[in-house]
Amino acid sequence: MALSQRIRKLKPYVAGEQPQDRVYLKLNTNENPYPPSAKVQDALRTFDSERLRLYPDPLCRGLRRRLAEKYGLSPEEVFVSNGSDEVLSFCFYAFFDSTEGKLLFPEVTYSFYPVYCDYYGIAFETVPLSPSLSLDLRGFLGKNPSCGIIFANPNTPTGTCLPLGEVTRLLQNYPPSKAVVIDEAYIDFGGESALPLLSDFSNLLIVRTFSKSMSLAGLRLGFAMGRKELIQALFAAKDAFNSYPVNTLTQLIGEMALSDEPYYNAITGKIIATRERFSKALLGLGWHVLPSKANFVFASKKGIPGKKVYSKLKEAGILVRHFDKERTRDFIRITIGKDEDMDRLIDSLANLFS
Amino acid sequence: MALSQRIRKLKPYVAGEQPQDRVYLKLNTNENPYPPSAKVQDALRTFDSERLRLYPDPLCRGLRRRLAEKYGLSPEEVFVSNGSDEVLSFCFYAFFDSTEGKLLFPEVTYSFYPVYCDYYGIAFETVPLSPSLSLDLRGFLGKNPSCGIIFANPNTPTGTCLPLGEVTRLLQNYPPSKAVVIDEAYIDFGGESALPLLSDFSNLLIVRTFSKSMSLAGLRLGFAMGRKELIQALFAAKDAFNSYPVNTLTQLIGEMALSDEPYYNAITGKIIATRERFSKALLGLGWHVLPSKANFVFASKKGIPGKKVYSKLKEAGILVRHFDKERTRDFIRITIGKDEDMDRLIDSLANLFS
Repeated sequence: MALSQRIRKLKPYVAGEQPQDRVYLKLNTNENPYPPSAKVQDALRTFDSERLRLYPDPLCRGLRRRLAEKYGLSPEEVFVSNGSDEVLSFCFYAFFDSTEGKLLFPEVTYSFYPVYCDYYGIAFETVPLSPSLSLDLRGFLGKNPSCGIIFANPNTPTGTCLPLGEVTRLLQNYPPSKAVVIDEAYIDFGGESALPLLSDFSNLLIVRTFSKSMSLAGLRLGFAMGRKELIQALFAAKDAFNSYPVNTLTQLIGEMALSDEPYYNAITGKIIATRERFSKALLGLGWHVLPSKANFVFASKKGIPGKKVYSKLKEAGILVRHFDKERTRDFIRITIGKDEDMDRLIDSLANLFS
Repeated sequence: MALSQRIRKLKPYVAGEQPQDRVYLKLNTNENPYPPSAKVQDALRTFDSERLRLYPDPLCRGLRRRLAEKYGLSPEEVFVSNGSDEVLSFCFYAFFDSTEGKLLFPEVTYSFYPVYCDYYGIAFETVPLSPSLSLDLRGFLGKNPSCGIIFANPNTPTGTCLPLGEVTRLLQNYPPSKAVVIDEAYIDFGGESALPLLSDFSNLLIVRTFSKSMSLAGLRLGFAMGRKELIQALFAAKDAFNSYPVNTLTQLIGEMALSDEPYYNAITGKIIATRERFSKALLGLGWHVLPSKANFVFASKKGIPGKKVYSKLKEAGILVRHFDKERTRDFIRITIGKDEDMDRLIDSLANLFS
């Protein structure tokens, strides 16, 4: 077998199910229940396919300019790549090496983080959550020398979000020579972004995605915001892996989506309203629900293992996600769909576990 | 500066210029002068953008099935990813580690190979070309223990192509426990593919792209063909880097392009005819032209440094590529465009250097 040592040892990330056979109500991978902006459809209809014969702009200038305008930055402070998963991969490569200490991230968080560590050979240490399963940033400061910090805010799969004050305190007390990466994939659903801190902290990098609030999971587009030096390092990593990771159509569709803020504000508002309504309904059925600022909720019901809830719902044609680890196995993570989707789920839960 | 050791040392690949300001006749990055199939335009016009709200099929099943049918393989023997650059990156990760010897590749070849080595920390050794600048595969066998071989056939930037017999002899004499990756980005322009060898050699992997003969450089789509075990390793690498590197539209457009073989045969035929005609015209002007089986030619004129040719042509609005290394600096690499493009270039060369 002509395989490298590193591939023999590698344990890949396991994404949520994407079944292509049976039709499920998909509440398992935090996709948006509403279509992308109509401007996306227009862009596709009028796109001249001859443009595809040429390589894309490797610097994604138009798209980065738009993002910079939207967030009050300069284009040199914005990086884009093929989904926030790829942006994160380049972050691990460019910012974290454990020669100077381990990388720190929460014990319960996006389960891709340890996989990136594995891919690049980065040693890490996890920081416990509080008893209520929220992030406890003090835990990041009491550790031995570390080579950087990454956490998701809102966190996944819990959905809880830290206020800006706590994030500020972390940055004030962490060495400015080491990167702090905040994964804000879910920030548009009501959390407080660390964006205002970029001007004060040169070691802060914020990662975002078009997959959730922009309803473009199928497009694979993510971005990062931070000081020019950090963005240049991400470009260097990209240019040693794949010079053109974002194709011409994706760059254009991203720009079009950014030009329709009213539509996206409207659907985000609907998802937030549905989340609040659904959370109350779940509480009404006797479930424990963590306070969420994301487009999903993390919930459990006493005496019923999360795995059983997952399986029973799958039989009923509804996919949710279960994480079979010590602190998460009582729970299921439920994506917020449309009102009618959540009503169907509430009915199923009431029937199955009352 | 919050940067890792590895990023400080990294020297990224430098792709050919993609100027977005002035309009050049672009004969520098081996793009196809003809548009993609009309089926690509149809696919874009009729695509329902709502599909983009969901994640893509991470296994790219439809596209892999089509490729498998086209090349007489099973889908399990096909891997697809975001451009052949990304496929190659996963190959370096999955197959080559220098604990058992260095990786071998030709001294003159795709200049991304040493960058991947740098990215993943793989030691390598280069094998000299023959005096006529063609690959000399015997050079790969006389070396100390190596961890694998990669070469491009046709090679770049030279354009020369080895016959199947020589490739077969290499595989017969190289340890079957170590991977041999053949980068066939340019194979459709008249070279002999190693495809018939896949059934005999379990360590052979062939990498291809939609960027050149399929006229879809802007789409970023590449693929690999080989035994199931090798393909599984590429999937494992992908799943530790980015679960969904190929977006929904790209998968669909790739399928559509594959369904229009007559069109692609026609434009490939035209490019080959133009190459032969152009090569003769260059010879007529007193240039030295390597025999090419690619959509470009590598040419030099005695007494005129390649760099000077490159600069003078750029002033005249024509981009070609110059590689400033010992064995290549006398030459320029010229992409084959349409007949009229090459006529314009011949006129410029006649005026500038007669």
